[in-house]
Amino acid sequence: MTNSTFPGLDAYLDSEGGPVERALERAVVTLEQCEAPLEPEVLGAIRHGVMGGGKRLRPILFASAYEACGGEAKEASYDLAASLEMIHAYSLMHDDLPCMDDAALRRGRATTHRVHGEEVTIRAGAALIPAAALQALDASGRLGCERVQCLILVRTLMAAAGAGGMVGGQWMDLLGEGLALGTEDLDALHRMKTGALLTASLEMGALAADADKDTRDALRMYGQATGLAFQIADDVLDATASPETLGKNPSDADLDKSTYVALYGLEEARRRARDQVDIAVSALNVAGIDSPALLALSRYVVERSK
Amino acid sequence: MTNSTFPGLDAYLDSEGGPVERALERAVVTLEQCEAPLEPEVLGAIRHGVMGGGKRLRPILFASAYEACGGEAKEASYDLAASLEMIHAYSLMHDDLPCMDDAALRRGRATTHRVHGEEVTIRAGAALIPAAALQALDASGRLGCERVQCLILVRTLMAAAGAGGMVGGQWMDLLGEGLALGTEDLDALHRMKTGALLTASLEMGALAADADKDTRDALRMYGQATGLAFQIADDVLDATASPETLGKNPSDADLDKSTYVALYGLEEARRRARDQVDIAVSALNVAGIDSPALLALSRYVVERSK
Repeated sequence: MTNSTFPGLDAYLDSEGGPVERALERAVVTLEQCEAPLEPEVLGAIRHGVMGGGKRLRPILFASAYEACGGEAKEASYDLAASLEMIHAYSLMHDDLPCMDDAALRRGRATTHRVHGEEVTIRAGAALIPAAALQALDASGRLGCERVQCLILVRTLMAAAGAGGMVGGQWMDLLGEGLALGTEDLDALHRMKTGALLTASLEMGALAADADKDTRDALRMYGQATGLAFQIADDVLDATASPETLGKNPSDADLDKSTYVALYGLEEARRRARDQVDIAVSALNVAGIDSPALLALSRYVVERSK
Repeated sequence: MTNSTFPGLDAYLDSEGGPVERALERAVVTLEQCEAPLEPEVLGAIRHGVMGGGKRLRPILFASAYEACGGEAKEASYDLAASLEMIHAYSLMHDDLPCMDDAALRRGRATTHRVHGEEVTIRAGAALIPAAALQALDASGRLGCERVQCLILVRTLMAAAGAGGMVGGQWMDLLGEGLALGTEDLDALHRMKTGALLTASLEMGALAADADKDTRDALRMYGQATGLAFQIADDVLDATASPETLGKNPSDADLDKSTYVALYGLEEARRRARDQVDIAVSALNVAGIDSPALLALSRYVVERSK
């Protein structure tokens, strides 16, 4: 896709959103219709958590990276992209639990545990992890990936889902409540929390398209910088937007967590987010990756209103 | 291993227990020392849950199947076996949570959430799932398995950990509280709950040793029957043994769940457990699998005292 054919970000998000939703629907139906299905209540909570809308940023980043790297089976690639959103859904379902953030609202509607109860939500969230691994294995096989690629893809997904990835970051997050973290701690926290799965999205898109190592490295750098920009922008939004606009409540600020805004003030936080976008864009340029979609997505994460 | 060299079950369990514990210790240390480690509290809960003793039945079944199928790198195979116990540890940690069984005691000591808190235990349990996937990927690679075998191994592990496996069974278990389940429901429940991971242990041992399809099928049948026997024996123990002997409390009977003993009475339940052992043994015989260890293990599950 070159600049001349890029339809603009809104149209791009619309056109990508449809196939992502359909792939997620197929993934949920696969769980519902498998030979020995989960209990109906757990399946209901999975459907609530996975099909609850959202930006679908991770699968869309995957699809954009896949296309930028010359991947030719884009329609089939969305099933692989869906595995990333399944992990994201698990992390949100567990994050919102009463013993974690105790959130009542997510994307403008009741959180999964408020609808399906705490125990069902813990089970459903945990069940999404092996389900995502199986989804990645099946989808990468159907996509015609070599076996070694399938192995690296599922390894990348599981590494992002586990140790040192989101879970580590979530914990630093909870521990950081009420503590004034230093700048380096905060950067590390955010790189881990948001960055691991965002970065995995880009790495997996590149891997699935069989990109060379330089391209994969550039997309990893783009992912890390974009992930950090995303988190700083989240802090800015939490400090400036209304719960109605955000569709969630309480914000990190309410919970007295260390945020970029608390540490640096609003303007400096905004500047740091833009710096990260510059780093992301320059990683693409240096590697000669011509992707108006990835350029627009990186800008979008700091300019979005929710 | 032929009958003439089998040392007897107690000596066998002792001799297998050592390398299993060492492999689990290596797995936990790998998590503790990785580049971007989990938060120390979560690692503490993982260590508590994984290194808390127990029969280690799943890794020992894996090792026995691996050896019975002619696997030659037994020492290295324990790292693959460890991935099964990591999934088992996750399921126990979540099962014992306040909103699930609310168990205070497991194997004679405080449950993980009683020591490390509910939120840390939820995180630690969930983190064990991707950690087990990575453990299986790494260990099968080091074991020299072909890539296609590595893929099938991680698929088998994740399928047992997820949909239709343990999670499904645990849910039927909770739903069954206070309900009189029919015999078929109870069989299905128990096959799923205990059977999925036990059966995966045998399948993975056979796969890692590159066994032919007939052998793998026979070991799957052995695993399903042994798993069912194990669960019936658990019901019998819950109805007859003291909490001190069992090292756990409350029993399923306290929670008014449907059990084989409640449905059939003690003697009939015992008879049905022995029937399953006969099925397991005959599956081995028909396939010509000469494994005194597997024979002894199948008998052990119904004769054990805790």
